[in-house]
Amino acid sequence: MSAPITVQKYGGTSVGTSERLQNVARRIAARAAGGDRVIAVVSAMGKTTDSLVALAREITPNPAGREYDMLLASGEIVSAALLAMALDALGVPAIGLTGAQAGVFTDDTHNRARITRIETDRIMTAMDAGQVVIIAGFQGISPHSDFTTLGRGGSDTSAVALAAAVHAQRAEIYTDVDGVYTTDPRIEPNARKLHDIAYEEMLELASQGAGVMHPRAVEIGLLYDLPILVASSFKEDLPGTLIRKQVQMEPSNRVRGIALDRDVALITIRAVPDRPGIAAQVFGPLADAGINVDTIVQNASAARLTDLTFSVAHDQAAAAHDLCRQVAADLGAGAVILDEHAAKVSIVGTGMQSGVGYAAKMFRALAGASVNIELISTSEIRITAIVHEDDGRKAVQVLHAAFELDEPVTATS
Amino acid sequence: MSAPITVQKYGGTSVGTSERLQNVARRIAARAAGGDRVIAVVSAMGKTTDSLVALAREITPNPAGREYDMLLASGEIVSAALLAMALDALGVPAIGLTGAQAGVFTDDTHNRARITRIETDRIMTAMDAGQVVIIAGFQGISPHSDFTTLGRGGSDTSAVALAAAVHAQRAEIYTDVDGVYTTDPRIEPNARKLHDIAYEEMLELASQGAGVMHPRAVEIGLLYDLPILVASSFKEDLPGTLIRKQVQMEPSNRVRGIALDRDVALITIRAVPDRPGIAAQVFGPLADAGINVDTIVQNASAARLTDLTFSVAHDQAAAAHDLCRQVAADLGAGAVILDEHAAKVSIVGTGMQSGVGYAAKMFRALAGASVNIELISTSEIRITAIVHEDDGRKAVQVLHAAFELDEPVTATS
Repeated sequence: MSAPITVQKYGGTSVGTSERLQNVARRIAARAAGGDRVIAVVSAMGKTTDSLVALAREITPNPAGREYDMLLASGEIVSAALLAMALDALGVPAIGLTGAQAGVFTDDTHNRARITRIETDRIMTAMDAGQVVIIAGFQGISPHSDFTTLGRGGSDTSAVALAAAVHAQRAEIYTDVDGVYTTDPRIEPNARKLHDIAYEEMLELASQGAGVMHPRAVEIGLLYDLPILVASSFKEDLPGTLIRKQVQMEPSNRVRGIALDRDVALITIRAVPDRPGIAAQVFGPLADAGINVDTIVQNASAARLTDLTFSVAHDQAAAAHDLCRQVAADLGAGAVILDEHAAKVSIVGTGMQSGVGYAAKMFRALAGASVNIELISTSEIRITAIVHEDDGRKAVQVLHAAFELDEPVTATS
Repeated sequence: MSAPITVQKYGGTSVGTSERLQNVARRIAARAAGGDRVIAVVSAMGKTTDSLVALAREITPNPAGREYDMLLASGEIVSAALLAMALDALGVPAIGLTGAQAGVFTDDTHNRARITRIETDRIMTAMDAGQVVIIAGFQGISPHSDFTTLGRGGSDTSAVALAAAVHAQRAEIYTDVDGVYTTDPRIEPNARKLHDIAYEEMLELASQGAGVMHPRAVEIGLLYDLPILVASSFKEDLPGTLIRKQVQMEPSNRVRGIALDRDVALITIRAVPDRPGIAAQVFGPLADAGINVDTIVQNASAARLTDLTFSVAHDQAAAAHDLCRQVAADLGAGAVILDEHAAKVSIVGTGMQSGVGYAAKMFRALAGASVNIELISTSEIRITAIVHEDDGRKAVQVLHAAFELDEPVTATS
């Protein structure tokens, strides 16, 4: 009997000025007038978070996590209050809620908290009273009643988790891009917007550097089978991309997207003794130090010595390098080499799990363009080649053409 | 057995930049090193609140009270988080708390909430754990778990109420002036800083326009007999002024201070029928409209008609004028006259309740300077003359000399 619930999320650019906030309010008002019950999750306005981070840096290079979250959470609270006011000014009853007020409970891992549960009582009560509910994204409340923030992709995560909790039909993420493309249009002008994409494909693209959506939010969508629409917050009539379970009416054996990640540094430990437990001895200390290791490749070796290479983000490269030199010394391994000029190029598509020849086609295309592959890793629906950063752009363009991603897909193709 | 508790409050100017925040942190650290348990209440940084108000005004001229409080509360949360970080960076364990986290419960009168109770559990637990406690001033939590703000003088009120709740020996208000003066030194260069002043005197001075402290905070000091030190946040070695119960070693028959309030408009209703209940009929509608009426004077009349004059702040003058014209028409009264060019000059001193001749001396001094008195009102320890605004400054200077406020007071004078 109740009207359907729409959960929307508006990013920092979308609410960057009072004028843009008023535009967002008008969009929400139109949706509410159509009969939907609307929940909108907002990010901090424009560069607010950056300014707060800069203030903290002026005070100390190592702010306490708890206070840092308290500081950053204020940005989204401001947006939520202002957007609720803007709706109210349009005659649409609205209420602004902090993460805590919205019942977003998290663990106490400050700066990158995980949502543990959402208690929707207050949200439902407000909607029952006819109010549009505006929720400060990116934040929650810890078991100690402290502010937490969810880390990168936090507001998207808030929106999708809230949509799941209130049993919305889908989450709508409005942002400054108008959907998910076969690859970054700034790299390949022939990139094509996808009508829809499977959760798993989006996850692989996102975790391989496609910046549209953070993988965390997509994971929640996958877990609850909650479709996520990614669309433009500025161009209202443009259809976006729907991230969902099944991709209709497209051949299943196609590559769907290509991701380029330039934030890649490679660390190689030479001549590691090849005995059981050696990987744990190398990667245990890195994990303990909070270093996020990505692609790992270990070369087979004849002489009981192996070369171990892995990738990390640039901002953790120096720390990882230092740590690996200690570990290498302890293990009696050889030199540790840091290469800060790498890039990851990935092709993604659910069809790859059944088809064959994708890898060969990829390597042939790259070879034809004289792109040297330094490292290879694969998942069921992804093949990643690590190349020199200077070759990243060319690699994307070559693969986009090789896999015919610039050609529109029809039901009969 | 426990160390004494010091409650300090730092205003917006005192925490206006990261450098100033760090200065405040050093002051607090020094006090903590001396063995005190320290609670610091902070305002929003510099012009933060003004910026937030401006943002809200861009959105709507009439923001909802609840959302307006949510918006404004963010300013103090930012300061509290940053100050806690600054202490932490000095090696002093600190925790930042919102008003809600500090247990400051209020009623739900948004924008001007009253504190109903303070639950100090979390503050005491933090202090027991050796942490300096930094609390966002000006804010509390409503019975509906919403942000409230305390209105004008809010952070001072927070500080004094918290000091009372934790049984501190006194509240220390650090601000951009270095104490309470006999009058505003910008008006009378011979103004003298007072070593101490009684609660009641400070209340009269504050409510008559002396801007150092808001009367609300002084009222709480009076109620709990909690001394309040007002001192400079910039010049650490300057003694401030202690607001307290008894003023020591000063003759009790002296005028203690002179206040000038330039935010005064006078409204006169001519020829009001002089019958019982008439005042209620005039001032009832004004109160209902939220108009704060100050001094009221009703002239005796022979012809059963009376002139009724009262003062209001400038920003309520137009509304009061409109309302009075309606009321006057209903009552069959005469013209309603609005005079927006008035000023209130008040002399204050507890000695006035026992002594005689203060009024005569005041009127003689003003007459000697050709200052015309338009209205007079008195309390036990105050005499107020309403004059033309152009005469306000001169009136203060004349009275400051007449009551010898520029001369230092000694125990034997």
